[in-house]
Amino acid sequence: SYSSGTQKVTLIPGDGIGPEISAAVQKIFTAANVPIEWEAVDVTPVRGPDGKFGIPQAAIDSVNTNKIGLKGPLMTPVGKGHRSLNLALRKEFNLYANVRPCRSLEGYKTLYDDVDVVTIRENTEGEYSGIEHEIVDGVVQSIKLITEEASKRVAEYAFQYAKNNNRKKVTVVHKANIMRMSDGLFLRCVRDMAQKYPEIQFEEKYLDTVCLNMVQNPGKYDVLVMPNLYGDILSDMCAGLVGGLGLTPSGNMGLNGALFESVHGTAPDIAGKDLANPTALLLSAVMMLRHMELNTYADKIERAAFETIKESKYLTGDLGGRAKCSEFTNEICAKL
Amino acid sequence: SYSSGTQKVTLIPGDGIGPEISAAVQKIFTAANVPIEWEAVDVTPVRGPDGKFGIPQAAIDSVNTNKIGLKGPLMTPVGKGHRSLNLALRKEFNLYANVRPCRSLEGYKTLYDDVDVVTIRENTEGEYSGIEHEIVDGVVQSIKLITEEASKRVAEYAFQYAKNNNRKKVTVVHKANIMRMSDGLFLRCVRDMAQKYPEIQFEEKYLDTVCLNMVQNPGKYDVLVMPNLYGDILSDMCAGLVGGLGLTPSGNMGLNGALFESVHGTAPDIAGKDLANPTALLLSAVMMLRHMELNTYADKIERAAFETIKESKYLTGDLGGRAKCSEFTNEICAKL
Ligand SMILES: CC(C)[C@H](C(=O)O)[C@@H](O)C(=O)O
Ligand SMILES: CC(C)[C@H](C(=O)O)[C@@H](O)C(=O)O
Repeated sequence: SYSSGTQKVTLIPGDGIGPEISAAVQKIFTAANVPIEWEAVDVTPVRGPDGKFGIPQAAIDSVNTNKIGLKGPLMTPVGKGHRSLNLALRKEFNLYANVRPCRSLEGYKTLYDDVDVVTIRENTEGEYSGIEHEIVDGVVQSIKLITEEASKRVAEYAFQYAKNNNRKKVTVVHKANIMRMSDGLFLRCVRDMAQKYPEIQFEEKYLDTVCLNMVQNPGKYDVLVMPNLYGDILSDMCAGLVGGLGLTPSGNMGLNGALFESVHGTAPDIAGKDLANPTALLLSAVMMLRHMELNTYADKIERAAFETIKESKYLTGDLGGRAKCSEFTNEICAKL
Repeated sequence: SYSSGTQKVTLIPGDGIGPEISAAVQKIFTAANVPIEWEAVDVTPVRGPDGKFGIPQAAIDSVNTNKIGLKGPLMTPVGKGHRSLNLALRKEFNLYANVRPCRSLEGYKTLYDDVDVVTIRENTEGEYSGIEHEIVDGVVQSIKLITEEASKRVAEYAFQYAKNNNRKKVTVVHKANIMRMSDGLFLRCVRDMAQKYPEIQFEEKYLDTVCLNMVQNPGKYDVLVMPNLYGDILSDMCAGLVGGLGLTPSGNMGLNGALFESVHGTAPDIAGKDLANPTALLLSAVMMLRHMELNTYADKIERAAFETIKESKYLTGDLGGRAKCSEFTNEICAKL
């Protein structure tokens, strides 16, 4: 198991502010004596023997061997035909469930103070199938692909997550009133899975209804499970309720490994200026530690980060402060 | 033109609370001496000569003749194969643009006080195409259909709307980073249309980004135009920001007529008890009056309704008050 001895963890620092916030996380981990060893890799696509661009083999091997990784933001390569590198990674490692907890931070005031939801997003298919056609000139179709296999898998993940984290309720979010077959299949898979977890409350809600209720009364929701695009939307919306993507972690769970990432952008305008906020990547790293059953370290680091935010003496610009990334980081280290 | 003489308007009272809120609107219109004549029709599907269920011919004829209608909430008929009656109407009358203004009401406090956005939703295709297949057992696809024709049409509507209503900016909401061909086509159509309206600001935003920004700073947005499903979601979310679907109007614009409707449910639990809030239907009727160029009546009725809400003496239960639908309605009439 993960908890004995020093584990190797793949680190994908990423682009833009990626390297600085990754360095911040590494520094904090060192200060906390976390028993892991980082293996940094570059995922910038390279041209393979077949002439096509792809993720470098060394990076793939590293994740496949370590089975666990932390990743900063990635730029989508410019030019026709390049798909998002984030998506390529999800595909390459079969990262089927994307988990994004969103909790109101005691130390950071927004309009809402009772947000505590977890969106669990099917991460491999749905509207992200990539299958599109032009039927005739000016008529295009995109295919939303829903399979029983992927739907069951993410449904099971959601209920297991709820169980392991003492959550009370799972809500499946859908538009099966419109997409009767595809969302209908997804809905049925989650509904069937719910039967196996009688101790967890279960409810079915339309996506539009959830969007409406979430901004009025987010306390209504707990764990939410849904197809790919709905998760993309709802997770960003929930992040907005608690302060934005700079504060929310994310984990991509696979059959054979897991990749934790901050989901904000590369912020090229402030890159290299020691101005970035490393919180989202740090909290993703904390999620990773819990996944590795290194809970003591996770709790310690999380507490230090939350306290630093709450004291609000060393907040970065995005949170309305004037501190540098390094000052924020040092304060967390000092608390450890 | 609409403004001379008495016009006939089709009224579809609808199900559940539909009849009582429709009666409330009629009463208020009478009090305001609005020069229209209502023609009430029933749209409950009937079995046709071909054995299939469909909207009664009398209702279809009424809308096609009057070219303008007001509609309360409709129940979706129970039973396999029945699609939503709301959708059937959008299809039957080719109502290609769904317009939903959302504005903070001075008299009704929510967490937000600076919401003033209009979502303009493509209303005929996209994720609502209804085309779905089961490829093999457990593998289903739904087709999102985007055409140049429908995209251009709604894009033009959005810019014309902005121009006629003195709005400053149009934002196109998309996920063309994922659905490159379908959302890509929609995006290009709006982008091309923007060129013809140099006086209106134009911006392109990802759907997830809009969801995030909308809950943090709705003042950023003005008019938003987008494919069908995105409009379904965003319009509900925006309604949530200002107090819910009980307070927001909606208009469906067609080539050959327009149908205005409240988009809340039929609320069967309170139906017939004189407890429903008629505001959403009333504001939809006000939108209808503006569409008919009966602006003086529209302004007068809107003012009376807003004042009644602001005074908060006669609020219905959904708004935290104890007034009956009839008391709220009478107070508006008294102000007219
Ligand atoms: C960058 C983009 C392709 C991605 C998505 O749409 O999934 C992002 O929004 C996310 O949520 O991780
Ligand atoms: C009732 C339902 C079919 C409809 C939709 O999904 O469009 C509703 O949510 C709406 O927004 O008008």
